[in-house]
Amino acid sequence: MVKVGIVGVGTVGEAVVKNILKNREIIKSRAGKEIKIVKGVVRDLNKKRDINIPLTTNYKEVTQNPEIDIVVELMGGVDKAYEVVKDALLHKKAVVTANKALLAYHRFELQKIAKTPFEYEASVAGGIPIIKALRDGLSANHILEIKGIINGTCNYILTEMKKGRDYNEVLKEAQNKGYAEADPTFDVGGFDAAHKLLILASIAYNIDAKPEDILIEGIENINLTDIEFAKEFGYEIKLLGIAKKISNEIELRVHPTLIKKNEMISKVDGVMNAVSVVGDIVGETMYYGPGAGGDATSSAVISDIIEIARGNKNPMLGYKIPLEIEKVSLKEIDEIESKYYLRIAVNDEVGVLEKIAHILAKNNISIESFLQKPRNGYVKLLFSTHKCKEKEIKKAINEIQKQNFVIKPINFIRIEE
Amino acid sequence: MVKVGIVGVGTVGEAVVKNILKNREIIKSRAGKEIKIVKGVVRDLNKKRDINIPLTTNYKEVTQNPEIDIVVELMGGVDKAYEVVKDALLHKKAVVTANKALLAYHRFELQKIAKTPFEYEASVAGGIPIIKALRDGLSANHILEIKGIINGTCNYILTEMKKGRDYNEVLKEAQNKGYAEADPTFDVGGFDAAHKLLILASIAYNIDAKPEDILIEGIENINLTDIEFAKEFGYEIKLLGIAKKISNEIELRVHPTLIKKNEMISKVDGVMNAVSVVGDIVGETMYYGPGAGGDATSSAVISDIIEIARGNKNPMLGYKIPLEIEKVSLKEIDEIESKYYLRIAVNDEVGVLEKIAHILAKNNISIESFLQKPRNGYVKLLFSTHKCKEKEIKKAINEIQKQNFVIKPINFIRIEE
Repeated sequence: MVKVGIVGVGTVGEAVVKNILKNREIIKSRAGKEIKIVKGVVRDLNKKRDINIPLTTNYKEVTQNPEIDIVVELMGGVDKAYEVVKDALLHKKAVVTANKALLAYHRFELQKIAKTPFEYEASVAGGIPIIKALRDGLSANHILEIKGIINGTCNYILTEMKKGRDYNEVLKEAQNKGYAEADPTFDVGGFDAAHKLLILASIAYNIDAKPEDILIEGIENINLTDIEFAKEFGYEIKLLGIAKKISNEIELRVHPTLIKKNEMISKVDGVMNAVSVVGDIVGETMYYGPGAGGDATSSAVISDIIEIARGNKNPMLGYKIPLEIEKVSLKEIDEIESKYYLRIAVNDEVGVLEKIAHILAKNNISIESFLQKPRNGYVKLLFSTHKCKEKEIKKAINEIQKQNFVIKPINFIRIEE
Repeated sequence: MVKVGIVGVGTVGEAVVKNILKNREIIKSRAGKEIKIVKGVVRDLNKKRDINIPLTTNYKEVTQNPEIDIVVELMGGVDKAYEVVKDALLHKKAVVTANKALLAYHRFELQKIAKTPFEYEASVAGGIPIIKALRDGLSANHILEIKGIINGTCNYILTEMKKGRDYNEVLKEAQNKGYAEADPTFDVGGFDAAHKLLILASIAYNIDAKPEDILIEGIENINLTDIEFAKEFGYEIKLLGIAKKISNEIELRVHPTLIKKNEMISKVDGVMNAVSVVGDIVGETMYYGPGAGGDATSSAVISDIIEIARGNKNPMLGYKIPLEIEKVSLKEIDEIESKYYLRIAVNDEVGVLEKIAHILAKNNISIESFLQKPRNGYVKLLFSTHKCKEKEIKKAINEIQKQNFVIKPINFIRIEE
């Protein structure tokens, strides 16, 4: 029998307890052993819960409990969770966590401490077994590129906007449906996706980076003009987490992205998640499914417990011995190359287009397509560019923004092809 | 160091040798050990090859070689491969195979013999790590349903037919491109997909069935009228391998299927493969990627070698101890329920529709939609039905076929919703 303690018994924790009980027999035959949850750690003992396991408020009754084999951390947050997980590892417990923020900040420190199995399938894309796919299924490959729809809230909002609905209206609805938090910044600002991207990137590239180090932009400025442009030119707009290896530099970025309609990942709509991975041997594979929700997330947590119960010992971040041969470094944000779409609202004056075209040309940016839409009292200019560097496009935008005829802040979206 | 012998050095075998060498460093760091191919077994020593490993024609120099840890079987076929793999297992070698036919017939016997790790990721859907997803990533779930596009040739042909191209023309092109064999029956007849489906089903349900036991229909009778009907009613036509659990009966079937355009799996076009899996806890997840080709398949084979090199011991068919609690049996073909689409060509006579409707009603089959298309000299009647049993629809079709006004064999396609 494998004995499990859970630290943090909220929505996911309750689902783990409930589903281990519900599927007890099949889990036992797949794991080769019975799995039993023997203790839960909570903040409030008096809160009404649907489950029936012994509870405590002292996490050390789990992390230092000689009876317990596996500690499952589901409390969320960074500092306290780090303390708990570290204590569990130091007491030789195997660890399972669903905590993306903890891993976004401390995965390499935890890897150093961990002498026992450490699994975290639920930390990225909920029920999709993307950690195992990347770490085990694609282990023969150099990973060339990862593109992930790894925030369901953003994908839901962008999908609804395709029907012509306004950003704020859809956001409010998503909040009412429970897809989005009261303060939605963490989701719509791209930070949640960034945490997940960093975890995937460390498996693919063994690269240590923190959320503060990488390019993160949210979907707050997308409007219906952008949606229209996308339709007109055969794109979808998705918030993507992107990791790419270009020679020995790793690009990591989260931002709204225009991608061609015929790419498989652009067909993923609603709250669903998907991660496309390009390996040098296998080519592109993609993994699709529910990225959130108690049950879906509990499926990933329990699969980790089963993996440990089977006696398997996987390298935590995909590498069992340090990869010295291939020193990678994080690409500077300014140096990242992309194609761009620009939306510029201007007064309807003579010579405006000429001036903008001049500024772009001066900054070495060439225009790929152009669309002009008259609006009430002003004109919208929509450009897409050929590839240029982040610092070049930002310099050009700054310069254009200073012109008198520009009447609204310029918006831009990166294009992936 | 882990030493590997390969039995069968064709396209996939050569790719395995080449890619283990190419990605040597990253494979070593992911496996924790160096992986070295020390011998290959071939039929013809004089054939020119692009690789540089010691070769022999005697498989026992691999299966009984005390130096070798893992035997990789890539020779294909059933009987001889069974002999080789059995000999390897009896000599305590770990085994990796890409051989779907071998597993379709002998997986349960091999499971009994195997006391060493036995991995077969490449046997289903080439480079997509679907075996690991089902066996490890979704291990917490009762699997409710599997739907797979697991034959790239069929998917390529059906995708091209959507452009209005004729079946025979596209098949010939697929043969020229190397997607289809000179004798295409194994692919277009659904047998290749059936082998793969049986492997997936045994992981999901622990069910032992042979290709002869299950419903297998190919795509040979699909024509442009069917494609038109699908378009008109919002469907795609895909050759699917379907496994479903309904109470304690398992439905296994391979056939062309009408599925709604908005389902994720219906968006998979060209030679690509995809498998959708519905688990009772996680809901639907889907796995997409290249289903064939030397490099893609070698990615799966090498990932299996790495898994074994890590020291992991996974239950071969997903179950570590026999699942006694849940006895499942194969559902009889006649009892399978589905919705159907019927294509009936008739002479343009009075009362025809009435007679057909009468036969359908008599057999308890109710019509969901109906479309009549005039053709040169005759009329095409296209029906879709509500759910009925296989034996009911076949009885009705037989009866309708006997009517004088029917001028061509009736064709039907099952509808999944």
